[in-house]
Amino acid sequence: MFSAAAAGAFSLWLPRPAKGYTAQEVRSRLSTRTTISDVSKQDLETPALCVDLDRLEANIAKLQAGLKESRIGSRPHAKTHKCASIARLQLEAGALGICAAKISEAEALFEEGIDRICMTTSNLSAGKIRRAMRLARRSPHFIQAVDTKNNARDLSDAAREAGVTADVVIDVAAGNRTGAPAGAESLTLAQWTDSLPHLRLRGLLAYDGGAQHVDGFVERRERALRGMEESAKTCAQMQASGLDTGIFSGGGTGTYSMLHAVPGFTDVQAGSYVFMDMQYLAIGSEDGDPVYKDFLPSLTVMTTILNNRFAGKLTTDAGAKALTLNRPRAGVIGEPGMDYDAGSDEFGVISVKESSRSYAIGDRLELIVPHCDPVVNLFDAIYGIRGEQVEVVWPITARGCSQ
Amino acid sequence: MFSAAAAGAFSLWLPRPAKGYTAQEVRSRLSTRTTISDVSKQDLETPALCVDLDRLEANIAKLQAGLKESRIGSRPHAKTHKCASIARLQLEAGALGICAAKISEAEALFEEGIDRICMTTSNLSAGKIRRAMRLARRSPHFIQAVDTKNNARDLSDAAREAGVTADVVIDVAAGNRTGAPAGAESLTLAQWTDSLPHLRLRGLLAYDGGAQHVDGFVERRERALRGMEESAKTCAQMQASGLDTGIFSGGGTGTYSMLHAVPGFTDVQAGSYVFMDMQYLAIGSEDGDPVYKDFLPSLTVMTTILNNRFAGKLTTDAGAKALTLNRPRAGVIGEPGMDYDAGSDEFGVISVKESSRSYAIGDRLELIVPHCDPVVNLFDAIYGIRGEQVEVVWPITARGCSQ
Repeated sequence: MFSAAAAGAFSLWLPRPAKGYTAQEVRSRLSTRTTISDVSKQDLETPALCVDLDRLEANIAKLQAGLKESRIGSRPHAKTHKCASIARLQLEAGALGICAAKISEAEALFEEGIDRICMTTSNLSAGKIRRAMRLARRSPHFIQAVDTKNNARDLSDAAREAGVTADVVIDVAAGNRTGAPAGAESLTLAQWTDSLPHLRLRGLLAYDGGAQHVDGFVERRERALRGMEESAKTCAQMQASGLDTGIFSGGGTGTYSMLHAVPGFTDVQAGSYVFMDMQYLAIGSEDGDPVYKDFLPSLTVMTTILNNRFAGKLTTDAGAKALTLNRPRAGVIGEPGMDYDAGSDEFGVISVKESSRSYAIGDRLELIVPHCDPVVNLFDAIYGIRGEQVEVVWPITARGCSQ
Repeated sequence: MFSAAAAGAFSLWLPRPAKGYTAQEVRSRLSTRTTISDVSKQDLETPALCVDLDRLEANIAKLQAGLKESRIGSRPHAKTHKCASIARLQLEAGALGICAAKISEAEALFEEGIDRICMTTSNLSAGKIRRAMRLARRSPHFIQAVDTKNNARDLSDAAREAGVTADVVIDVAAGNRTGAPAGAESLTLAQWTDSLPHLRLRGLLAYDGGAQHVDGFVERRERALRGMEESAKTCAQMQASGLDTGIFSGGGTGTYSMLHAVPGFTDVQAGSYVFMDMQYLAIGSEDGDPVYKDFLPSLTVMTTILNNRFAGKLTTDAGAKALTLNRPRAGVIGEPGMDYDAGSDEFGVISVKESSRSYAIGDRLELIVPHCDPVVNLFDAIYGIRGEQVEVVWPITARGCSQ
């Protein structure tokens, strides 16, 4: 025992030859090869944002197949990945379109060739309204959410100025965060919007953010369906008054398999399903498993151990500026006995209850992130990994596009 | 009462003509004028990161004057602002140098003309070590922290390869996160480092992150001085064994006025003092005031109200992707009865207990951020505001440089 412990202690001091490639260096190595680089994810400079391509592709295929069976479509939300290359994979797999949360996000994706964008948030300032209608002119399949009469009138004016008739959908509140209250107010708004000369009403959105992370499949389905009752009635009222309800979009990664039961519902706006994260893994599966297994965790952050000299602790180079403060905390792959605290801006601090081996300064750990959307937003690029090798480096097209 | 309430309710529907200028539009307006633009901060597209320039300048002058009186220097930490323009103001005000937390941050600042950078984190990968020593070749006043013998040897090898003798400091642990344990281990490391042919030992760092936010001045000073006892002894031992201790750097915004009492201490690495935030405002002043008043809050985020139709709630366009999840929560300027929850990625949700007036969709609010460092890291640019007008748009030079 003693000698094993001593050997363990000694091994803590062995240097490891991590190369520490930057994104630029990896890109340059990739450019000289046709398919896959000779760079292992273990040699990436850290913190590094990685996506397992086999799993990403499987997740995209799984959602698409599942929804096809339920006879509804997908309109994946790009707020999660902010990455034109991933949006393209989703569209190629059969998505009806791509959602964007902010006008700057929509513009950035469109500049990289992504079309059929639906902006799920209303734009209020004169500048954003003008930009949205300019985008509508350049991108005939662009769809803009609207949730007040004033906003609809402003959009119509800007559409006239831009020389387009713009597609719009009513954002019907499902919860109390955004959108017009369901029922009479939304119906009146829909009628008013439909009457405006430069807008073309296409239907409605109803996204119930609060339903996505309800713990337990049965409870989640109950909440998801209840949360859509009022918007489904609104949809029926719109239909009855002769309005277009060709789009009735909502739902997310936690509820994608439930909403085909909602009358009139057309497509799911899931975002996180491409990556998964600690939050979604924790919501539970239909078979009662506490882990949500519909999609495979594909997104990780590689980090380096900077310090191992304080009892029961390891310090890493990935803190809140690489992982955010979301809960549950980051999961260290292969080390369930480690509790990863990203509470420091620059450093992660791991409390080690137990570990599979001793760790040296310079060793790497791979983390499942707490919540994928805001973590991706912290990085300029994401490494696409096949097996252990880097296959591609994708820019996070709309990184930082919070406007 | 009723008519006032009705008028209030009606006013909620009045559109406000916020122009919504982008950074590019503001830059273009600034380029046609010599000093100050005609753009009010109220017309910036939101979320927008702003700094009040009068307050920023006052904070920089205050720290400099205070430390001069205590006969120590400043080496402000750029991890807070990541902005070459602000680093330049600090150097011009008399700072001894600028600290950087990551090699990519140091490189980005150097590319924008910032010299005298001290990198306070050790670099472990072959790539980062090589980059640090290349920076040392280009920037003769660059200083690199080191905290293990292996790392010192690797640095010396890389310095030889780069053709430099590089300045280094020992990172002595003050707390249990980073650095070599104080005492014998740090002393041996310092001697070993000093003996390496391509390194020049300049002294030590000892940063006690945990001391900065201790609530109450007296408690904080007690903790700050206690936390430096071991490193001060190490400094004395280094001195006694003939090593250079010309640099003994540490401390931060919460402890800047206390550390001149530590024997041998030379300079303060404060970062947040330029901006302040809800966390630092809450730590208390020397006169017993629960608000920390040494520096003025200069950093704000402008946000737009997207929804006011749910009782007691306002929804804004600044969520966790603009404000992080740090605590205490963002403070709404002028509205102490509002509780700002940035828990949604894209939206802020305000619970309104009381407010000075009613708020319309499209109205702006100005927020003091929870914790300045990670918020600044979410934005590409910061607007420098004089009074109400935009005077300058500064790029966040090292935004996202977490490697």
